[in-house]
Amino acid sequence: METFTIIGLMAGFCTTVAFLPQVMKTWKTKSAKDISLGMYLIFCTGVGLWLTYGIMIGDLPIILTNVVTLVLALSILFFKLTFKD
Amino acid sequence: METFTIIGLMAGFCTTVAFLPQVMKTWKTKSAKDISLGMYLIFCTGVGLWLTYGIMIGDLPIILTNVVTLVLALSILFFKLTFKD
Repeated sequence: METFTIIGLMAGFCTTVAFLPQVMKTWKTKSAKDISLGMYLIFCTGVGLWLTYGIMIGDLPIILTNVVTLVLALSILFFKLTFKD
Repeated sequence: METFTIIGLMAGFCTTVAFLPQVMKTWKTKSAKDISLGMYLIFCTGVGLWLTYGIMIGDLPIILTNVVTLVLALSILFFKLTFKD
């Protein structure tokens, strides 16, 4: 496998799993006061569009990473809307 | 321009600018207690790898969007490390 392909896969892995510690932290503390609602509204829209793009061009890596990211980012958005500030 | 290209550009725009409201909120409130340090450590690493990948394959959209995202995500990481919880 080419070096740039390995770097690209590591990049996708990091920017996808990065949201997991935030999901766990917010779930544990039940506090989302410092988290920006605007960020997660725009971000979830963007990830949904990436998913649409991946489906349209039939790119499996784009589809898979964005499904995982969407689940995690929507969880944070849900916590933000659920836990009282 | 093809529909999927427009959707891809909109996706990239959203997942890049999404971090701006978080930067502004954290700067204004000077509070980053609920923000996960782990998330931004992993995320900044990932965006740095995306930037490296973009440079290696010579892809301008990947380079540009990830430069902007890296500046915004590093700002949030800096605030998290600076503002006392």
